[in-house]
Amino acid sequence: MTQPKTLVETLHGRKTDRTPIWLMRQAGRYLPEYRALRAQAKNFLDFCFTPDLAVEATLQPIRRYDLDAAILFSDILVVPWGLGQKVWFEEGVGPLLEPIAGTDELKRFEPQRMVEALAPVYETLRRLKTALPADRTLIGFAGAPWTLASYMIEGGSSRDFAKAKLWAYGRPESFQKLTDLLVDAVATHLEAQVAAGAEVLQIFDSWAGALDSAAMRRWSLEPIQAIVRRLNQTAPQVPVIVFPRGVVTGYRDFAEAGIGAAISLDQHVDPAWARDAVQSKCAVQGNLDPRWLVVGGEGMRAAIQRILDVLGQGPLVFNLGHGCVPETPPEHVTELIATVRSYR
Amino acid sequence: MTQPKTLVETLHGRKTDRTPIWLMRQAGRYLPEYRALRAQAKNFLDFCFTPDLAVEATLQPIRRYDLDAAILFSDILVVPWGLGQKVWFEEGVGPLLEPIAGTDELKRFEPQRMVEALAPVYETLRRLKTALPADRTLIGFAGAPWTLASYMIEGGSSRDFAKAKLWAYGRPESFQKLTDLLVDAVATHLEAQVAAGAEVLQIFDSWAGALDSAAMRRWSLEPIQAIVRRLNQTAPQVPVIVFPRGVVTGYRDFAEAGIGAAISLDQHVDPAWARDAVQSKCAVQGNLDPRWLVVGGEGMRAAIQRILDVLGQGPLVFNLGHGCVPETPPEHVTELIATVRSYR
Repeated sequence: MTQPKTLVETLHGRKTDRTPIWLMRQAGRYLPEYRALRAQAKNFLDFCFTPDLAVEATLQPIRRYDLDAAILFSDILVVPWGLGQKVWFEEGVGPLLEPIAGTDELKRFEPQRMVEALAPVYETLRRLKTALPADRTLIGFAGAPWTLASYMIEGGSSRDFAKAKLWAYGRPESFQKLTDLLVDAVATHLEAQVAAGAEVLQIFDSWAGALDSAAMRRWSLEPIQAIVRRLNQTAPQVPVIVFPRGVVTGYRDFAEAGIGAAISLDQHVDPAWARDAVQSKCAVQGNLDPRWLVVGGEGMRAAIQRILDVLGQGPLVFNLGHGCVPETPPEHVTELIATVRSYR
Repeated sequence: MTQPKTLVETLHGRKTDRTPIWLMRQAGRYLPEYRALRAQAKNFLDFCFTPDLAVEATLQPIRRYDLDAAILFSDILVVPWGLGQKVWFEEGVGPLLEPIAGTDELKRFEPQRMVEALAPVYETLRRLKTALPADRTLIGFAGAPWTLASYMIEGGSSRDFAKAKLWAYGRPESFQKLTDLLVDAVATHLEAQVAAGAEVLQIFDSWAGALDSAAMRRWSLEPIQAIVRRLNQTAPQVPVIVFPRGVVTGYRDFAEAGIGAAISLDQHVDPAWARDAVQSKCAVQGNLDPRWLVVGGEGMRAAIQRILDVLGQGPLVFNLGHGCVPETPPEHVTELIATVRSYR
């Protein structure tokens, strides 16, 4: 019989003796051991698809820090890649994709082959399940349909999402087809992760905040709701954390619709508002500004305490409002964890 | 005796027979006549500082459209330029500044010479006061301290505001000095605009949404409050619109603190939330996604109606959630105005 794990217990809404903590992008360039490991693969997708390397990257922050969970080292763009879109990463530029301009291009996709194409990801999870200390939780993840669609249409990162929004706003029936395809692909990818050992899932809708409030509901909330409903049927034991980043008061809409065991909040959300509007309905995760981890010291400790003072009594997973940035001094992460652990 | 103007009346909280409308960046690259005019100056700051050209740029959208107001054609970065910082614009890059790294550099600034340096801006307003049809309102504007500081520190636009946030979060006493200097400079610039004929003022805190919720209060809300308090003393007849873009539920905090006659809302804000949390305390402005103006047609009309259905009964200035984008077909602006005017 395994011990109940703090993160899983908190996500199930049960009282725990401490606040669980993990950090988005806790494995990454701010760690010297990560940079050394990364140098062993010639490109980023190869790195993600080599279980030896991806397992090691996942475990690095766990070896260094007292974190409650390890999150699979992978990328949200493995889904479009697995569907058959050309995806590559250029150093200093970020992800690049051969962009799609309409539903015609979807015909070339081979969704039925995605799980086979992503076999190395699931192999990574299976190995992690064995390698991870028994008291740590293994988190799987995927990008949400809107965020994936925006990369697939823009052909990479975007400042204004001009093409993706023109399609979503101007040709909603057509955009619905792309969304439906992605709802199925994302759910399938997450189910395969659960089969391979993921105990908790997180859905990242990193660019949900680019949509206006009505479009957010249709293209972020509804597709994520469809995915979570399916997962609640196929993997009822696995709590899902939902992160529709930047949706303003939309976080409340997700909570009220009962989507996910926890809502992850960006750093711009006022904790007091979130306590009343979100945490009254489900667990919350967040929401320290990752820039505090660069600053460290008294300022960072005070910012951590502000969050714990307001959200620490309800179900809370301590985390950042967005991923760790490369400039983070690793010792500030130690300091952050100690501050959360010693909070009374 | 001049007729009461719809925009001014609405901002004073008085009932009007129609919803006033103007658009952020209503003068700009989407208009062919603007592009022709812009070609007459060799750089963007020269363009702003040549009253013949700036007056014409301000009036162009007024000639074309039935808008309630004209907004001075200028730029928020005239304030750092007027203080003595090197500012220039590069085609396709945007604004560039010789960045400042600490308060030492503030000693080189000459705030007492700013109003003299910005004389062409005030001359532009004086000419507009004569040239503008009597039923249109003349709006002056400035950037807020945090947004100006972020440009001054980053040396231009930024994705992550790494340097500005490191300074604000890590050296708050020092950052307070820069903020105090900017509070005074911005208030002085706005007072000079009122003296030259501005009837309404707008304060743009375009990057307020980059700060976490506690930092937003200190570096966006409090400095803007200080500016508005001073203006309410020195120019009590002039309503101030405040636009702390992207502050999530912070818009409510501005309204509750009584800062400004109206709060301008970005497109990510849910109108129903804004009606209850903001419009119950002051006028609101916004909040159509500028991307709808690119799409046009039935979708745009429905998006306009959603805003009017929810916010149209209280004091509302119809506007965008951010500026007009260059890809906007000019005829969609005509269609937008007709939709707002014919709404029942």
